[in-house]
Amino acid sequence: MAVNLHIPDESAIFPVAGVDIGVAEAGIRKADRRDLTVFRFEPGTTVAGVFTRNRFRAAPVQVCEENLADPGQGIRALVINTGNANAGTGAPGLAACREVCAELAKLMMLDPRQVLPFSTGVILEPLPVDRIVAGLPHAVADLRPDNWFNAAHGIMTTDTLPKVSSLRVNIDGKVVTVTGVSKGAGMIRPNMATMLGFVATDAGVPRELLAQLTRDIADQSFNRITVDGDTSTNDSFIIAATGQSGVQISGPTHQGFLVLRAALVEIARDLAQKIVRDAEGATKFMTIRVEEAGDSEEALKVAYAVAHSPLVKTAFYASDPNLGRILAAIGYAGIEDLDVDKVNLWLDDEWVARDGGRNPTYREEDGQKVMQKPEILVRIALGRGKAQETVYTCDFSHDYVSINADYRS
Amino acid sequence: MAVNLHIPDESAIFPVAGVDIGVAEAGIRKADRRDLTVFRFEPGTTVAGVFTRNRFRAAPVQVCEENLADPGQGIRALVINTGNANAGTGAPGLAACREVCAELAKLMMLDPRQVLPFSTGVILEPLPVDRIVAGLPHAVADLRPDNWFNAAHGIMTTDTLPKVSSLRVNIDGKVVTVTGVSKGAGMIRPNMATMLGFVATDAGVPRELLAQLTRDIADQSFNRITVDGDTSTNDSFIIAATGQSGVQISGPTHQGFLVLRAALVEIARDLAQKIVRDAEGATKFMTIRVEEAGDSEEALKVAYAVAHSPLVKTAFYASDPNLGRILAAIGYAGIEDLDVDKVNLWLDDEWVARDGGRNPTYREEDGQKVMQKPEILVRIALGRGKAQETVYTCDFSHDYVSINADYRS
Repeated sequence: MAVNLHIPDESAIFPVAGVDIGVAEAGIRKADRRDLTVFRFEPGTTVAGVFTRNRFRAAPVQVCEENLADPGQGIRALVINTGNANAGTGAPGLAACREVCAELAKLMMLDPRQVLPFSTGVILEPLPVDRIVAGLPHAVADLRPDNWFNAAHGIMTTDTLPKVSSLRVNIDGKVVTVTGVSKGAGMIRPNMATMLGFVATDAGVPRELLAQLTRDIADQSFNRITVDGDTSTNDSFIIAATGQSGVQISGPTHQGFLVLRAALVEIARDLAQKIVRDAEGATKFMTIRVEEAGDSEEALKVAYAVAHSPLVKTAFYASDPNLGRILAAIGYAGIEDLDVDKVNLWLDDEWVARDGGRNPTYREEDGQKVMQKPEILVRIALGRGKAQETVYTCDFSHDYVSINADYRS
Repeated sequence: MAVNLHIPDESAIFPVAGVDIGVAEAGIRKADRRDLTVFRFEPGTTVAGVFTRNRFRAAPVQVCEENLADPGQGIRALVINTGNANAGTGAPGLAACREVCAELAKLMMLDPRQVLPFSTGVILEPLPVDRIVAGLPHAVADLRPDNWFNAAHGIMTTDTLPKVSSLRVNIDGKVVTVTGVSKGAGMIRPNMATMLGFVATDAGVPRELLAQLTRDIADQSFNRITVDGDTSTNDSFIIAATGQSGVQISGPTHQGFLVLRAALVEIARDLAQKIVRDAEGATKFMTIRVEEAGDSEEALKVAYAVAHSPLVKTAFYASDPNLGRILAAIGYAGIEDLDVDKVNLWLDDEWVARDGGRNPTYREEDGQKVMQKPEILVRIALGRGKAQETVYTCDFSHDYVSINADYRS
């Protein structure tokens, strides 16, 4: 029951010059399921990534970080399996991950350090290397530019819908494409972990600049969504820039840089929001915007306190404009010197709490009208400064409990 | 559907010499409901309290803190109403609260600053002072020592069962009684907030020592429970020491001090645990014990990360020994330099995760056997030091969502 999750027409998904994608059914956990995806990048592509901060980092996350840190010959391939997260698997897990990279490197005539691995699925179970290795030739044989939809399917676990987004912009008189896929729906069905996002552009971006840009974009997209507050062991977000459009971003002052950056933000944010829209049991999509904060950190504290409160989330599920719960969450967010008399709160355009109390002109029926909508803006002004942050989340329904209380079989 | 919440036999609840309690039906929110409770203490009683850290503090919390800070003539009465939290009500809310104190003071021939007020119920609605004031004479007329059960009923909101606990110990050859009541069941049905705990003893304790003792005991009881992580605007915990037993604790080196302290810890912890046992939708009572932490703060970070994870809580609801979810919560608890290879995890006596991965000798069926129990110990060893903390929580069920998604009518 996804909330306004639009699947674009296949014709609106533009291939990215320099990127081929292959998808296979490797039977990793279940038969007859696309569960193995390979990306191939043309030589000269720069790649950057942002990964989970969970201390239990999955083996593929560790290998990704190693390989990205190695300036060597440059990343040329991604390999993504579902059905097993290869997390909490210790040294054997690392070895299994390296074996997959080595096998793909052999098939593609690369160095294993040119491959980035990603896994998503059950935690604490050994990676079925043999099945993945057996599936790799099929994925490689499938490599082609117009395979983004298949990739979106190939990385799904408990997602109900594929998540893909694409746009074109003009830079230096040339057409530049940005296309990406993502997956994730909470920390997902028992032991199924992971948010993954892969975005590619045919603009060229210097490696260091791309690394900085990727962190920056993550902070406006994948680092601003929350379903249940549970950070997975495998979260990864990758941007690859092939340069095959002929457009080369020379640096942050290049006039095309802001255009590319805006396009990447739009795609990454759309892919991140799609994860929330498809979240387990979600019936409402909520944007929590905190304004007039002293700094970005305290804006985020308040936004996440509201976004994570089970009481707030169940109230939205019930379409109950329950102001007290939102104010209470603001109050316990951890701003020690918060002056509650300066706090204001709006639901969409309804001014519900004014100067820390109920707005005298607010009528409950107006609040309830807003709460009936599938998309709601919760706007909080703290009266402390000029910082602002936005977080995207969803409500908390019976189905969330049902999905997550299902046994893993 | 409370979890092992035992209601003691009335004969096992011992009155506390120097404490009289009166309960009335004031029709504050609903008719025919005990909703107004008054405690009267003999002169010479010392009183201390611990209150919510939520920045949106209810009016009665502010008045409590003022009156407790005033060394004046000493606290002689408590007045507790349900049905309205008097929170988010600004200056009129404070005035309303003071009016209730003044009215009770007049009836009891006290100074208004000798009264501590408590409110629990709907947030952001004006306190119906008239109904409370009209009810006060009835509550005062009801004052008697053997009224603790009535008090436990009188402070209930969405609690399904009254919470009362009592014991007697020997100090200096005399019998000392400790008896208390509590209420709370999550941050409770839409807009119904508040955990309240009131404990009295007929031992005498100097004011400063009692204040310190109350903070200390809160940290072993009411500050170690969590249902949904939502800190209410009204949480209050009070200890009153009447001295009427003839036992006077002279200081922390008095040999009876440790006996009294242990008795107070036992009663406060039992009352706090009763709140979790009666939590909204709870089907399991979980004790999260974190050992081998570097300090108390990081032990609590890990314990609360596990206790608040909706994924962990739904797994317990499903009786699914889902290790990955617990490890993931440990990993994102915020200990930056956590060495996951030193983390061990037990469910009761089953050693499930060893050195950061699955214990090779652990069998899933053994974990599942533990998960079927209504009371489960989750023991986590971090391998960092000697600090230890324990937090009590419950699972997360369909009923939690149902209860909290009910409209407020």
